[in-house]
Amino acid sequence: MELTNHQIRLTARPNGLPKASDWEHTSEPVPDPGDGELVAQILLVSLDPAMRGWMNEGRSYIPPVGIGEVMRAGAIARVISSRHPEFADGDHVFGLFGAQEYVVSDGSGVQKVDPSQAPLPTYLGALGMTGMTAYFGLLDIGAIEEGETVVVSGAAGAVGSVVGQIAKLKGCRVVGIAGGEEKCRWVVDELGFDAAIDYKADDVGRALREHVPDGVDVYFDNVGGEILDTVLTRLARSARVVICGAISQYNEQAPRPLSNYLSLLVSRARMEGFVVFDFQRRYPEAAAEIGGWIAAGKLKTREDVVGGGLEAFPDTLLKLFRGENVGKLVLEVAEA
Amino acid sequence: MELTNHQIRLTARPNGLPKASDWEHTSEPVPDPGDGELVAQILLVSLDPAMRGWMNEGRSYIPPVGIGEVMRAGAIARVISSRHPEFADGDHVFGLFGAQEYVVSDGSGVQKVDPSQAPLPTYLGALGMTGMTAYFGLLDIGAIEEGETVVVSGAAGAVGSVVGQIAKLKGCRVVGIAGGEEKCRWVVDELGFDAAIDYKADDVGRALREHVPDGVDVYFDNVGGEILDTVLTRLARSARVVICGAISQYNEQAPRPLSNYLSLLVSRARMEGFVVFDFQRRYPEAAAEIGGWIAAGKLKTREDVVGGGLEAFPDTLLKLFRGENVGKLVLEVAEA
Repeated sequence: MELTNHQIRLTARPNGLPKASDWEHTSEPVPDPGDGELVAQILLVSLDPAMRGWMNEGRSYIPPVGIGEVMRAGAIARVISSRHPEFADGDHVFGLFGAQEYVVSDGSGVQKVDPSQAPLPTYLGALGMTGMTAYFGLLDIGAIEEGETVVVSGAAGAVGSVVGQIAKLKGCRVVGIAGGEEKCRWVVDELGFDAAIDYKADDVGRALREHVPDGVDVYFDNVGGEILDTVLTRLARSARVVICGAISQYNEQAPRPLSNYLSLLVSRARMEGFVVFDFQRRYPEAAAEIGGWIAAGKLKTREDVVGGGLEAFPDTLLKLFRGENVGKLVLEVAEA
Repeated sequence: MELTNHQIRLTARPNGLPKASDWEHTSEPVPDPGDGELVAQILLVSLDPAMRGWMNEGRSYIPPVGIGEVMRAGAIARVISSRHPEFADGDHVFGLFGAQEYVVSDGSGVQKVDPSQAPLPTYLGALGMTGMTAYFGLLDIGAIEEGETVVVSGAAGAVGSVVGQIAKLKGCRVVGIAGGEEKCRWVVDELGFDAAIDYKADDVGRALREHVPDGVDVYFDNVGGEILDTVLTRLARSARVVICGAISQYNEQAPRPLSNYLSLLVSRARMEGFVVFDFQRRYPEAAAEIGGWIAAGKLKTREDVVGGGLEAFPDTLLKLFRGENVGKLVLEVAEA
């Protein structure tokens, strides 16, 4: 039986939010694997704010997705036909397989995942890139120390929700910034954050003065824009500002510039960007520690798994920028 | 004979560039020293861009100069009457003595300087705060390594001219950014910088592409504003941006915001502010190394010593913001 691979390809560089005409839906037969290759069926596709950056032209930490190419995406797949010595039919694997239904791979960059250890979506969340991003950003770039105060934006998002929990596990006070009462309640009541600021309802500067009177030691920024600029005015001495992302800015033609960077001087603070891919060799270390916390019930994972199949990819991506997801947003492409 | 102490006091918080009416010229008798005190005659007053920040209200790394107070200033003085066990009449000393002709001090924060080792103005320049700022900013915050490319703005200024020379001594390639052909020629021909960019004549972005094709490893920023924003687009991977000052912004009501901070993410770079006072315990270490370089003829010092006495303080300060000085700007208040 010949299988058909449906794919979502980038067909134009978006101007602002990606729209239907920026995508093309294509299909082609799934080839047989060559020697040393495997063919896998994609089950779950990861939706990440960073994807928006990958769609833009220009120099970045990774080449842009080319026009006409299958959209780059992390995904969980099941091997259906392997001629690769390290993978067997039935293995579950993670890789940058793209927004499509099947993938042919020579195995490079492909990692096995074990569905008996954790639900498959968790391998895109706390046990996947998301968790790695939170872990290395907070511990290596943020260099948190016990007793410090950590503020994290996008607190109810995939990365932010893990950041706050790790910071608590390491003995920090944690204040989250999120949009809406439900998200704020979730991070405090369910995840154990010390406080949450609803940026849609509260004056963030005033709320920071109230909840963080002695200043922010580490700010983990997922959103950029006005919130970042406000937090810069509330830094404690020797603060670290971790630039993980800037979801509020990715669809802007001209990102909102930063007015308060001289706070870095006043507070002897640093602001540092990072890219999780640079920590690849240390993923096992992070996965082991996060896995231990999950197993011990100390770290809660939450994935927002959306149905609708591959066709729903373009619309599902927009949920991120509308702030509609809580936890890690995942698209189910095929049943596990 | 009773001595009179003339003083320059801050009388209003400036709006933009400080103007004559922001200052008050006062005089009072010089008292005799109490037990444990010394009286010194001020010879040389340091002019520093940071002074402009000290005149503003609001939270900073140091309290603002109060309205009606003698303007804060580093100075070199000669002890004329000591009842302090550690200081003798005739000693030359450095301290934050203020914009005045005489000072009474209990000796705290006062350091002796030796005019037989170096000319007195050098103790306000390369052997003073200026040199300390360059040294710790470049080596501790910039963390330069041999073979790296260092870009420094305000390159012909007090701090920048020392930064570039230290970077050369440590085996770096150095590109200076300065205003005007004369300054550019000086840093290349006299100080040994590898290249200089004249921001008044050149397109800084284009010039950086030419002179620093592989990107900037360390950017030591004294100016802020548009130049900082431009350099951010030319960072090498793992670059360090040292925020030492922002002379272009100190007289602006609303500082020019920074558009390109997300380059920190793309380049996995960090931007860090510092205040030289935090390194006080390590000043001797820096002074010893800088002193050695000066003695060996490896580091050139230049002070721009202006006459006119204390009355000239307000006008002399403005030379900094007009970019009129080359090297360290010093006001001679009395003959040594």
